[in-house]
Amino acid sequence: MIANEFEARRQTVVNGLAERKLDALLVSFSPNLRYLSGFTGSNGSLLVTPQKCILFTDPRYQIQAAQETSCQVRITKGPLTAVVLAAIQRLRLKRIGYEPARMTCDFYESLKSRLPMRAALESTAGWIEELRMVKSADEAARIRRSVDTNSQAFEQTVTHVREGMKEQDLAAELEYRMRRLGAEKPSFETIVAGGVRSALPHAQPTAAPLKSGELVVVDMGTVQDGYCSDMTRMLFLGRPGNRVKRTYRAVLEAQLAAIDAVRPGVTTVSVDRAARDVLKGYGLDGAFVHSTGHGLGLEIHEPPRIGQRDKRRLEAGMAITIEPGVYLEDFGGIRIEDTVLVKEKGCEVLTQTSKELRVIE
Amino acid sequence: MIANEFEARRQTVVNGLAERKLDALLVSFSPNLRYLSGFTGSNGSLLVTPQKCILFTDPRYQIQAAQETSCQVRITKGPLTAVVLAAIQRLRLKRIGYEPARMTCDFYESLKSRLPMRAALESTAGWIEELRMVKSADEAARIRRSVDTNSQAFEQTVTHVREGMKEQDLAAELEYRMRRLGAEKPSFETIVAGGVRSALPHAQPTAAPLKSGELVVVDMGTVQDGYCSDMTRMLFLGRPGNRVKRTYRAVLEAQLAAIDAVRPGVTTVSVDRAARDVLKGYGLDGAFVHSTGHGLGLEIHEPPRIGQRDKRRLEAGMAITIEPGVYLEDFGGIRIEDTVLVKEKGCEVLTQTSKELRVIE
Repeated sequence: MIANEFEARRQTVVNGLAERKLDALLVSFSPNLRYLSGFTGSNGSLLVTPQKCILFTDPRYQIQAAQETSCQVRITKGPLTAVVLAAIQRLRLKRIGYEPARMTCDFYESLKSRLPMRAALESTAGWIEELRMVKSADEAARIRRSVDTNSQAFEQTVTHVREGMKEQDLAAELEYRMRRLGAEKPSFETIVAGGVRSALPHAQPTAAPLKSGELVVVDMGTVQDGYCSDMTRMLFLGRPGNRVKRTYRAVLEAQLAAIDAVRPGVTTVSVDRAARDVLKGYGLDGAFVHSTGHGLGLEIHEPPRIGQRDKRRLEAGMAITIEPGVYLEDFGGIRIEDTVLVKEKGCEVLTQTSKELRVIE
Repeated sequence: MIANEFEARRQTVVNGLAERKLDALLVSFSPNLRYLSGFTGSNGSLLVTPQKCILFTDPRYQIQAAQETSCQVRITKGPLTAVVLAAIQRLRLKRIGYEPARMTCDFYESLKSRLPMRAALESTAGWIEELRMVKSADEAARIRRSVDTNSQAFEQTVTHVREGMKEQDLAAELEYRMRRLGAEKPSFETIVAGGVRSALPHAQPTAAPLKSGELVVVDMGTVQDGYCSDMTRMLFLGRPGNRVKRTYRAVLEAQLAAIDAVRPGVTTVSVDRAARDVLKGYGLDGAFVHSTGHGLGLEIHEPPRIGQRDKRRLEAGMAITIEPGVYLEDFGGIRIEDTVLVKEKGCEVLTQTSKELRVIE
């Protein structure tokens, strides 16, 4: 990431502090902390004030923090709350923004009960997540690389899929390929599920062998340069029957309809509805048990959510998934998912992998 | 897991409710929820009362939840707080235990602000973590399998290590081997760091090639049947010089001294001190910047912590790591880590991998 980009983000926060009449923002949630500072460690708190930005972390990250961030770094052995409180006192901060959806009750209480006189914690719920929704050119490029790596890993692996292969071995191959192609890690636990287990939207791979005559769902993503990708494709071992073909076509139509609906200014619920309406035409809307998609970036699930109750308007620069699916307990599940970038006009499907049902004979 | 084991754990909780004068316990933290119910999904809340146990989750987990748990399952599309509150009202629960270190301020507020008259949330901080510290025979067997898989993955991979291999490719190989040997996933992001980067206790693997004359730290673990393992071993490419040998010997002596100190009844700080005293004798205690170890089980880091400020007494059945290390910015880092089970008499080092410095010529 360009160092200036972190500084620009912190400047945006500083401007927002004035609007919110806050003296500081306290961030401990790792993706938000990384977004504002560049620091990738697992334990840290960031205090952003108009005058300075201080990162508090523990001795394990002493060297790493100095390398990763241009913020001041304070290393401490004990709980971070003690040093954060000391800084609040020293800098005479009165109104301190915090993230209630990201902070535990414990951390909040240990801060609040020891705040200096007249100092208070004020909720800034969703603020940084809001900033993170619209990706910069550099972030979009990272997501594109992550998507490409993910697709390559899929292509390199899928040619080796054979009847009898274990779900978990296929998952292991996919993750190995990702890593060899430069990904840091999978962006979530790779899903490989055959037969009726494909009807579990979040199935974990098992030792079960892939069988002829079965659908196999492959849902996978990589993290590359810190940014996530997400893709689902379906395999079929043997010759698919009419029910599989018809259901696959329904989901594919739904997915294409949702992608068609993606452009700046439309509400997320209308994108969801585009997919749901198609499935309704097939009598399958009752089997579509989740939302159509979600934002992704530093996290695999971020705002905006593309669901039935979500009315946010899309903006150019948002990166989202489009992934309708149907789940039938006696039959199996079918889901098709791409990573999509909202552009000034319409959108770009970043995922290049073919959306044909992969028939493995 | 034996189904009865979950019921026995819930019975322990029910007994504890009476002692604490509580009507129910509400658990949303995934490892605690899994410990009490068997459910492995990422979104759920569990309400344990003397009469019944209800798991609330979303439609993605409908089929899976029914398969995994003997608790009642309630599926809901909206936020879980709404259905949890409805159950609290219906069951006329007054004093409800919750986990302040595991619940976000948001979730807490959305519950608390809508509780029925005379109902209240009471902290049960650390209760379930306390139960989880002492492992059952079945849990110990899972940890042992996880440790063995991890060691096998290390052995299968380390023979292929050569100068010029990228850190991230070695990490990819290790994780691939784990998976092929039956692990569900790595228990944390595998650390492979060569040269001065080995001085970063939590280094992420990079595209840097392993070089002759360099130390390489490999810190890896698997999750198998839900349970974690954790091991660190050091490689050296070429012929190690005197400073490497001397520092390695110091860390190994410290690690053995700490293992020697592990038995029921001793305090965790005394185990930490055993390691620290050895390093002090070498003038290296200032370079040992973290604690000697930590508990592990369903999570990679659990209580007890084996550190300088931790005075808990060890008990038979606890599974812990022993992992002293020294970190010298201009030289590199050396850490040696095993997974250890506290036994009625002393302890058993579960990790079978040789602790010799692996010299690769």
